[in-house]
Amino acid sequence: MKIDGVHYRSIWRDAGGEVRIIDQRWLPHELRIVALRTLQDFARAISEMWVRGAPLIGATAAWGVALRMQEDPSDQALADARARLLATRPTAINLRWALDRMHAALAPLPAARRAEAAAAEAAAICDEDVEINRRIGEHGLALLREASARKGGGRVNVLTHCNAGWIATVDWGTATSPIYQAVEAGMDVHVFVDETRPRNQGAQLTAWELASHGVSHELVVDNAGGHLMQRGEVDLVIVGTDRVTARGDVCNKIGTYLKALAARANGVPFHVALPSPTIDWTATDGLSEIPIEERDPREVTHVQGLDPEGRIVQVRICPEATGARNPAFDVTPAELVSGLITERGLCAATPEAMRALFPDLAGG
Amino acid sequence: MKIDGVHYRSIWRDAGGEVRIIDQRWLPHELRIVALRTLQDFARAISEMWVRGAPLIGATAAWGVALRMQEDPSDQALADARARLLATRPTAINLRWALDRMHAALAPLPAARRAEAAAAEAAAICDEDVEINRRIGEHGLALLREASARKGGGRVNVLTHCNAGWIATVDWGTATSPIYQAVEAGMDVHVFVDETRPRNQGAQLTAWELASHGVSHELVVDNAGGHLMQRGEVDLVIVGTDRVTARGDVCNKIGTYLKALAARANGVPFHVALPSPTIDWTATDGLSEIPIEERDPREVTHVQGLDPEGRIVQVRICPEATGARNPAFDVTPAELVSGLITERGLCAATPEAMRALFPDLAGG
Repeated sequence: MKIDGVHYRSIWRDAGGEVRIIDQRWLPHELRIVALRTLQDFARAISEMWVRGAPLIGATAAWGVALRMQEDPSDQALADARARLLATRPTAINLRWALDRMHAALAPLPAARRAEAAAAEAAAICDEDVEINRRIGEHGLALLREASARKGGGRVNVLTHCNAGWIATVDWGTATSPIYQAVEAGMDVHVFVDETRPRNQGAQLTAWELASHGVSHELVVDNAGGHLMQRGEVDLVIVGTDRVTARGDVCNKIGTYLKALAARANGVPFHVALPSPTIDWTATDGLSEIPIEERDPREVTHVQGLDPEGRIVQVRICPEATGARNPAFDVTPAELVSGLITERGLCAATPEAMRALFPDLAGG
Repeated sequence: MKIDGVHYRSIWRDAGGEVRIIDQRWLPHELRIVALRTLQDFARAISEMWVRGAPLIGATAAWGVALRMQEDPSDQALADARARLLATRPTAINLRWALDRMHAALAPLPAARRAEAAAAEAAAICDEDVEINRRIGEHGLALLREASARKGGGRVNVLTHCNAGWIATVDWGTATSPIYQAVEAGMDVHVFVDETRPRNQGAQLTAWELASHGVSHELVVDNAGGHLMQRGEVDLVIVGTDRVTARGDVCNKIGTYLKALAARANGVPFHVALPSPTIDWTATDGLSEIPIEERDPREVTHVQGLDPEGRIVQVRICPEATGARNPAFDVTPAELVSGLITERGLCAATPEAMRALFPDLAGG
């Protein structure tokens, strides 16, 4: 999407053939665009979270393999690059998927053809991600049009949690894609952006995306969504997800569940946008089957921001003696989900509807 | 309650007769105890939020009048002190109540007797507040004992939101009073403290109180409570309130409603602790009758904390171009409230039960 009028992807090859990314650690305060020039650069960009978001991590890893093939297209280099990149974020499913795909495309080829093929495959992975997200947006746009029609036209107010935006993917994002498409279609859309403590991805990333693209939005604390829904100020909620089970339970950033409860209590549609690979067809009961990562308490006890002198610092917000619990995700039971927005279309969060839309993926 | 083993109230007269308070703006990072020596000091302490919390504001105003009567017990000085203090936080109901009470006690007296009577009345207001909160704790303690019994004994896990603690009152607090009493009774209690964005009263004040008194606790982001309740990690929720309607709708710090929804969805008791003056017998439907204050967006876009160099600073967490909505309170409908904890005992959040417990206050 756009940054001050110029279209960007979150990863791209520049005119000189170098791969560039936005070093997202400094957003929203600084837009740092960096070139990744060595395998080490790519590995560090993933492990130190210069890039984040499952699709973007996969795309970055793919380009990392492509770069290495330019330097050394040997079997040994291919295997080493794969292993090196896979170790950066061992739990990211997209990372393994992208590396396996690169390996499958390159391993059968003679070394001399690998550099070109690797670049083509990495570019294809990126283009496919863009296309998937574009379609999610197209299908989600229908929901925004419905929401507008329900209120007899006029502004549609969307609430979103965390960052399922274009900088978590290659472009468009998942939850944000319907919003960007609505804006392009000339609809009047306003977005309430949940701050999303503890890491503040809403305040730091989603707000930055929307501000940069010129989408009307306001930041709200994570506590505010219930009140806004109670007062009729939210027409629909759209969030992304890290994993959806075969029956439609949704694992997403901590706090999503609370918004889903409020949406249900107030008759506000609650939709989840996802590319189909996010569905874990082997899991059914999200609560018992999805382990929830507990992260560093420091994310809770400290907040990062820009100090009055323009420096990015972390400040401690509680007594030094106070510890913290930091569950990173929660599970929203399928019954609270109004529907899923996928690249193939809309779908109820039920095993039947999901199998009907993805018979090829759902398995026996 | 205690700070590192020494018992404090939030306002007290020292051996030399000076009124002292904790300047709460610097908590939890610095414990600054200051003497209030002029009417101007008292007014500034209230208006600039060195003290906050309805009961403590009332108590501070009462001591402000008492101080002024020592200097000048004339009718003019009495009237001026009242007007000056009333203007500090015009919407605080306790402030007006305390000033009216002081005025009623002092106006009929000859000037020569006012200084002594004013000090006695201010002291009485403080002592009565302590006693009310002690009783709330006594009644609430029964709920903690029940919660422990339900799980066959062992640790009771309480979740609380914002600061309804001893430093919002003269001592004990409201929501925290049952917790302190349980600790004094030797129970094993653990408190999950909601951070409570935007002003972080949970992280800054409740966590500080509990750490200072030596109560087991952990800070959690406001997003985490739903997940913790879903996993059975919370035995009961206790919060304070700014206003309760005659049918039991509860107005409290923004985000309370989301926790009440999660408590209901997961079968967790959700209790509200309050002194009876918090009940607004003239209001019924909290959603339509209680106006919700919208505060400065800067509270949302900025966070206060201690920087790596030990300075208390505010950092901006979002793009400069991003605005914010900042509703300060929300309304939890009575049907989500398991019960009220008052100085007269426990009570269902229904008009009938409330009138039965407070026939003298409920009116015709």
